Amino acid sequence: MTVSIGNELATPAAPSAGRLRPLGLREISLKPGFWRERQEINRTASLAHIEHWLEKTGWLGNFDAAAEGRLPGARTGREFSDTEIYKLLEAMAWEYGRTGDEALDERYRAIVRRVAAAQEPDGYLNTNFGRPGQAPRYSDLEWGHELYSFGHLIQAGVARARAAGPDELFRVAVRAADHVCEVFGPDGTASVCGHAEIEPALVELYRVTGERRYLDQARLFVERRGNRVLADIEFGRSYFQDDLPVRRAGVLRGHAVRATYLAAGAVDVAVETGDAELLDAVARQWRSTVSRRTYLTGGMGSRHQDEAFGEDFVLPPDRAYAETCAAIGSVMLSWRLLLAQGDPAYADLIERTLFNVIATSPADDGRGFFYTNTLHQRVPGTEPAPDVLVPRAASSLRAPWFAVSCCPTNLARTYASLAAYLATVDDDGLQIHQYAAATVTTTLAGGSPIGCEIDTRYPDEGRVAVRITETPATPWTLSLRVPHWAAGATLDGRPVEPGWARLHRRFAPGDVVVLELPVQPRITAPDPRIDAIRGCVAVERGPIVLCAESVDLPAGVDLNDLRVVPHAEERDGAVVVTGRTVRPPAQDWPYGLALEPVTTGTVEVPLRPYHRWARRGPSTMRVWLPVADGRTE
Amino acid sequence: MTVSIGNELATPAAPSAGRLRPLGLREISLKPGFWRERQEINRTASLAHIEHWLEKTGWLGNFDAAAEGRLPGARTGREFSDTEIYKLLEAMAWEYGRTGDEALDERYRAIVRRVAAAQEPDGYLNTNFGRPGQAPRYSDLEWGHELYSFGHLIQAGVARARAAGPDELFRVAVRAADHVCEVFGPDGTASVCGHAEIEPALVELYRVTGERRYLDQARLFVERRGNRVLADIEFGRSYFQDDLPVRRAGVLRGHAVRATYLAAGAVDVAVETGDAELLDAVARQWRSTVSRRTYLTGGMGSRHQDEAFGEDFVLPPDRAYAETCAAIGSVMLSWRLLLAQGDPAYADLIERTLFNVIATSPADDGRGFFYTNTLHQRVPGTEPAPDVLVPRAASSLRAPWFAVSCCPTNLARTYASLAAYLATVDDDGLQIHQYAAATVTTTLAGGSPIGCEIDTRYPDEGRVAVRITETPATPWTLSLRVPHWAAGATLDGRPVEPGWARLHRRFAPGDVVVLELPVQPRITAPDPRIDAIRGCVAVERGPIVLCAESVDLPAGVDLNDLRVVPHAEERDGAVVVTGRTVRPPAQDWPYGLALEPVTTGTVEVPLRPYHRWARRGPSTMRVWLPVADGRTE
Repeated sequence: MTVSIGNELATPAAPSAGRLRPLGLREISLKPGFWRERQEINRTASLAHIEHWLEKTGWLGNFDAAAEGRLPGARTGREFSDTEIYKLLEAMAWEYGRTGDEALDERYRAIVRRVAAAQEPDGYLNTNFGRPGQAPRYSDLEWGHELYSFGHLIQAGVARARAAGPDELFRVAVRAADHVCEVFGPDGTASVCGHAEIEPALVELYRVTGERRYLDQARLFVERRGNRVLADIEFGRSYFQDDLPVRRAGVLRGHAVRATYLAAGAVDVAVETGDAELLDAVARQWRSTVSRRTYLTGGMGSRHQDEAFGEDFVLPPDRAYAETCAAIGSVMLSWRLLLAQGDPAYADLIERTLFNVIATSPADDGRGFFYTNTLHQRVPGTEPAPDVLVPRAASSLRAPWFAVSCCPTNLARTYASLAAYLATVDDDGLQIHQYAAATVTTTLAGGSPIGCEIDTRYPDEGRVAVRITETPATPWTLSLRVPHWAAGATLDGRPVEPGWARLHRRFAPGDVVVLELPVQPRITAPDPRIDAIRGCVAVERGPIVLCAESVDLPAGVDLNDLRVVPHAEERDGAVVVTGRTVRPPAQDWPYGLALEPVTTGTVEVPLRPYHRWARRGPSTMRVWLPVADGRTE
Repeated sequence: MTVSIGNELATPAAPSAGRLRPLGLREISLKPGFWRERQEINRTASLAHIEHWLEKTGWLGNFDAAAEGRLPGARTGREFSDTEIYKLLEAMAWEYGRTGDEALDERYRAIVRRVAAAQEPDGYLNTNFGRPGQAPRYSDLEWGHELYSFGHLIQAGVARARAAGPDELFRVAVRAADHVCEVFGPDGTASVCGHAEIEPALVELYRVTGERRYLDQARLFVERRGNRVLADIEFGRSYFQDDLPVRRAGVLRGHAVRATYLAAGAVDVAVETGDAELLDAVARQWRSTVSRRTYLTGGMGSRHQDEAFGEDFVLPPDRAYAETCAAIGSVMLSWRLLLAQGDPAYADLIERTLFNVIATSPADDGRGFFYTNTLHQRVPGTEPAPDVLVPRAASSLRAPWFAVSCCPTNLARTYASLAAYLATVDDDGLQIHQYAAATVTTTLAGGSPIGCEIDTRYPDEGRVAVRITETPATPWTLSLRVPHWAAGATLDGRPVEPGWARLHRRFAPGDVVVLELPVQPRITAPDPRIDAIRGCVAVERGPIVLCAESVDLPAGVDLNDLRVVPHAEERDGAVVVTGRTVRPPAQDWPYGLALEPVTTGTVEVPLRPYHRWARRGPSTMRVWLPVADGRTE
């Protein structure tokens, strides 16, 4: 086995083929600004907060109990709790790779020792299965999450190998992967896990090690699923995408995290095996899903019951599920498609999702999180007690930890590796996908060093300046994504259309290229097929979805009794819409002849970024605002 | 113990106090017409269908296995499956009381023998708990459903005692009730069951037996709940109404079946103990729930995840849960409030619920059922296989049986006792609440015999003729409910207002009183606070909610691309709305500038009763239709 000590590939997904090549975490880093601030909160607060809760709940202690023969009696947490430790380790691996923080590495290695001690001689590792008194290994593929758990273990090991070189965790991951290939290989158990994740993980392990069997195994898992290899369940086999083979499906469906993870793994397999049909199938599913099953925020999955996509256009803002982890799965998927195909639409969705879900979930202090991300809060929530496990769906205020606590650790690994999603290179130059203050030092595909400084106060301001710091003498192409909403954008003063703004020329160090994106507020209306928000508009500003929050309204005004004029303007740095308040009808039965509600006054409503909501105590909130004349289509 | 052999009280709820006295099943019977047809299907087809499935699934066999010491190994079904047998027995008891069908009684007694054989010496009876290898009795009050199960056992025993006199099942029920009082009495376990039902059951047993301890125990259960006596769960304690004491709550909340059953039991306790505060509290909750948390169909409970009420005005038509059992619970509650307080608004809701949920659920052949009753079907469902258990929430087409199969048996007992909900008497006369062809022979509170024949083709036609067949010579009052929607109604040609139309006079045999209810189609708009149906109208005709179904549309017209003129008319017996079809925008992202969809044509859309939908194969369906000019408020 050859393992690349891959500092140059220290990036979450490193395909060996495709239109664009990702940058490693030492090739691109964030400078102070919107995302760096959040990444630092993740590093300095969230990682320790997560570690604290993993100890407090005993989920980390499960590994000690395993090593010491105290299972199953001593076990705590859900069947998939091991994965929270793996995702924390992945986050720590990226952070160490990025910062070289030795104190952090010490904590990382202490946890890895405890994890490694629990691995069984044949490579199997799971604190919930296989011991006397526990369910046998792989006895519950539908719900047991064993392969899902291996997937996160492998991702953590891969992250470490890429960020700092292979270590004990990486070797644990390799042994686990070998075990999986043995048990589930071509001659083994012909099934899959109820929750996808092993698929992209095995492809990444293939990419790090060059071991073809991992790729073959991932492909086997992708191909098996959809052939009704799992038992039927109350939610139907679509819940875990076992209703239709990936290459035949037309849209993402079922559990949104499972769906996006599986699709990401399918892209990985398609790219590494040159399977254009499979890649096209996933790209087609992405387009259907984005055009019919995605919230304005980029959130995916409208249903609480099964954390699942609804039917086309079933996107109710109240009780929107829009799980934080599904947003992360969406970014994983869009990023892989972007690398494979180069279409800036993928980066558009990543931007929307980052600014409106990934930035929304964490509390300002990094010690609380939204699990779900509703677009309409009707009743003010209650502040969660700081020391209590909150059920996952209680999303009215950010909570420190959850009974199912996948989102905090998933955010941690995402923030730690966030810079990787900003830019790529190809044979011909550099592509900047996401706008944040950052430093880039990389090489073009041909080997020429290239560097630039990106300066911007985006998304507050629309100006992005790219200053070339290192460049070959020969011409190359600088490509800047113009977001789909950015009508009126200019590049060095010349109008550019949404899509790619490309400059092909010779550059010299010191050259500055300026992209201006129009970030004045704009009115957005929904597709008329989305019944739940008929007669409403939203206001956006640049990539930011805005919302109205009760704490900004005059006393006595109920957010649900507002009717707005579909026009927004910016005054003294605040976006304001004008509206009237109406008195709802007093009635014993809420259906009858059409009633024109009585207007009781006019009001100016300041709108705030959606990602800032519920940071000033309990409140009600709306993204979609009913319009005063009732017409939006 | 005195047991009234209560043929004259053969009715589901027989309070000893209150404004109105119910009629027994031998005092009122249905004649051919809308409801009699359905009651006959229930009797001739559904009862045998249910019995078949209870045998096939082994849920009935669980009792044999218990008696023969084959549990837990041989047990099948969910923890509450015993209750389906009890609800079938209740249905059979009412049917036998009504018809005297000896073959049915034979089947009933055969099942009762099997149930009785499983009762333990101390009165405990549950096939899922308490044996070696099973969870201990009452070890899981949150989810175990043991007291809920006793509640249905007692209701079945009470039904039999009332309909035909006390029998073996009644004695089993009494022993079970004594056991419950022993274990959960004032000095016993101070808790409640996660699913209410024991409360109304114990009050009915008190009513039959006169044993005060059953009433005291019911009151204890009602008073204990809401004081956080159950453990917290993911859905919160409101799920089983343990968040707030009944007398302090302002609205029904949590699991809709649990909520309505509990409220029904609280009314029973309040009436029997003269607790005006408790009665007022439940009446207040009923009003809030009806004005803010009830679907146009009368359906209750909008959430799939926890089968629960949503927040005020969260009533999405797509994926409306509106469980059939919650509608039955709603009828139980409204009926008890009607008997206690005499307000015709309660009968209005019963009518709406009967015609639009209870009549919707069963298939025409009585061998399939809706578990949930959505108001908007976006994608045609698939025909369930005739021999397969369907998950409960798969509501696109009626299914023969469910993994959780509470609704078929609940419908069976409701249809079997349906005539009881039509009329009442009080000191002064007779009240007719629901209009169906029926024969009434009863006595006024003073003891005077009174009788009438009700003739009507309601709801197809609005004419209701009441012909007096027996009457005292002294004046009395005939009260006819004028539904809240019936503006323009007449009584013997004179205009009457919604509410009570009362005739106080001397009657003679042969007198005919004619109520004319206007059943022409009418447009209904929603309260503007119900976001999910903004910009839509529904069409109703008398008590019937209408809907548009794809199978009635011209080929190629998508139900979701209709915009209607808010006007409906009746032509040749069919209700028709006129609308235009629009071409939805083709877009990669479903949010943007306001788009006026292109009108592609005009179309006439026939509307059918909602209760008739999905009887002609897979289809899409809408109750709420977007209006063409976008304005409804």
